[in-house]
Amino acid sequence: MKAAAPPVGELPGCPPGTLFEGRRALSEAGVHRPLQAGIAGTALGGAVSVVLSGGYEDDQDSGHQILYTGEGGRDPRTGAQTAHQLLTRGNLALARSHLLGQPVRVVRRVAGATYRYDGLFLVTACWHEVGRSGYRIWRFLLESEAALESEGTTAATAAPERHATTRLRRLSRHGAQVKAWHDHTCQLCGLRLLTPAGPYAEAAHIRPLGQPHGGPDTPENLLCLCPNCHVQFDLGGVGVAPDLTLLGRPGALRQARAHHVDPAQLAYHRTHIYSEEPGPMA
Amino acid sequence: MKAAAPPVGELPGCPPGTLFEGRRALSEAGVHRPLQAGIAGTALGGAVSVVLSGGYEDDQDSGHQILYTGEGGRDPRTGAQTAHQLLTRGNLALARSHLLGQPVRVVRRVAGATYRYDGLFLVTACWHEVGRSGYRIWRFLLESEAALESEGTTAATAAPERHATTRLRRLSRHGAQVKAWHDHTCQLCGLRLLTPAGPYAEAAHIRPLGQPHGGPDTPENLLCLCPNCHVQFDLGGVGVAPDLTLLGRPGALRQARAHHVDPAQLAYHRTHIYSEEPGPMA
Repeated sequence: MKAAAPPVGELPGCPPGTLFEGRRALSEAGVHRPLQAGIAGTALGGAVSVVLSGGYEDDQDSGHQILYTGEGGRDPRTGAQTAHQLLTRGNLALARSHLLGQPVRVVRRVAGATYRYDGLFLVTACWHEVGRSGYRIWRFLLESEAALESEGTTAATAAPERHATTRLRRLSRHGAQVKAWHDHTCQLCGLRLLTPAGPYAEAAHIRPLGQPHGGPDTPENLLCLCPNCHVQFDLGGVGVAPDLTLLGRPGALRQARAHHVDPAQLAYHRTHIYSEEPGPMA
Repeated sequence: MKAAAPPVGELPGCPPGTLFEGRRALSEAGVHRPLQAGIAGTALGGAVSVVLSGGYEDDQDSGHQILYTGEGGRDPRTGAQTAHQLLTRGNLALARSHLLGQPVRVVRRVAGATYRYDGLFLVTACWHEVGRSGYRIWRFLLESEAALESEGTTAATAAPERHATTRLRRLSRHGAQVKAWHDHTCQLCGLRLLTPAGPYAEAAHIRPLGQPHGGPDTPENLLCLCPNCHVQFDLGGVGVAPDLTLLGRPGALRQARAHHVDPAQLAYHRTHIYSEEPGPMA
């Protein structure tokens, strides 16, 4: 990865479908600079491009959706996973793209040394799991921006002013109930965020809804959080231990008598979302 | 307004287009309970319904979009505006609906004493201005949920799991630049929110984009904020004085050498968004 931030997004004169003979041609066109690495980008600027070469048996590619396995922890001679993958280098760059909502160029090897630029994808999920080898691997769900737009789930250029809908999207059917139980007080930090229109909190799913996580929209799978803790919880900066003390910072989960939080969902969050590695850019 | 939270959203057996003879029929059906007030709801639960009777000369109704004037400050005999409207009662309920992204039933008087339920609307903007009388009036932009959905700008029921897109929507073309200038440090509170994927901040428009405010998407109209301060700034809980001290809390706007913040946009925010009235539910 380079130190200077490489360009993000579509490159002029290089529409989806453009073919390249060999990694050097791909690099010289600026579509994917590194000659060997599968992920290009920087820790702070995020990933700008990935190449799918069919190298990782755990990858799954269904066209508009790609389940992409992180890098690292493999024996360079045998390719066997012999250590944990860390949230560093390319994995960190993809996690950063997820955090920033920033698109990544996807390149596929289509035959021999022929590569095709296939358009912009968003990192719509970022988590970790224990692979077949017994070591931790990082996983990224990449979804085609064109496909998301035709579904109506993104509108990056159209009507960016519709901030009201960003809040609407986060509404759980049970959000108002859970927030009322906690009097809009954050269960992680204790803040009750006041605005002239009253206290504001967000209902955060512990095990995320929808694929790949498949969490339920139930009160037991929700926490009442302030927006700052919501970002940190979703990105794995804080977790909750079985005894309800917090992981990654001091304190304990604040409880309300009426609100039962499902320990199984907290365990899922610890196993797949919470990252015990310290942030690399403290 | 009632103390118990009245039901939000569409009522069973009452689709858009349903007609009612007189305010009492409207009240008994539960569509709009109060017999006189134009806004029904509670301070904490938000507004549940409004009635448009053509009473306020400042209202504008173009079908799917309604510019709705708040209540209060009028002489009950003459109807003349003789005092400021406050962020209390019905006005506070509508501001709360805006904050919560919660729909409001809209009823229009169509002829004489005949009222028609016209469906659910979202409060997509909430601000104040000095009316023709010289007194402050509150304004609310109500937009038909059906029209917003057909535009593709809401997806409350479809794919609520797409959290990545909520961040994407907030991206300004200049957001990355402004955040880099401030090293992702909040200009209001000084927090640099850390996650395992690096520091996280949001680019907040000072004068909001799009109608009714028409702010530009320029670096001079952006602040680098943490999510909590972003909510408070957008909802008017904090403002910035001409000397760059903060209004509504101690401190001053943090500046970066490269980032020029336009004083005219800060003045617009003070005049139309920032609310110097203390929050009623501290």
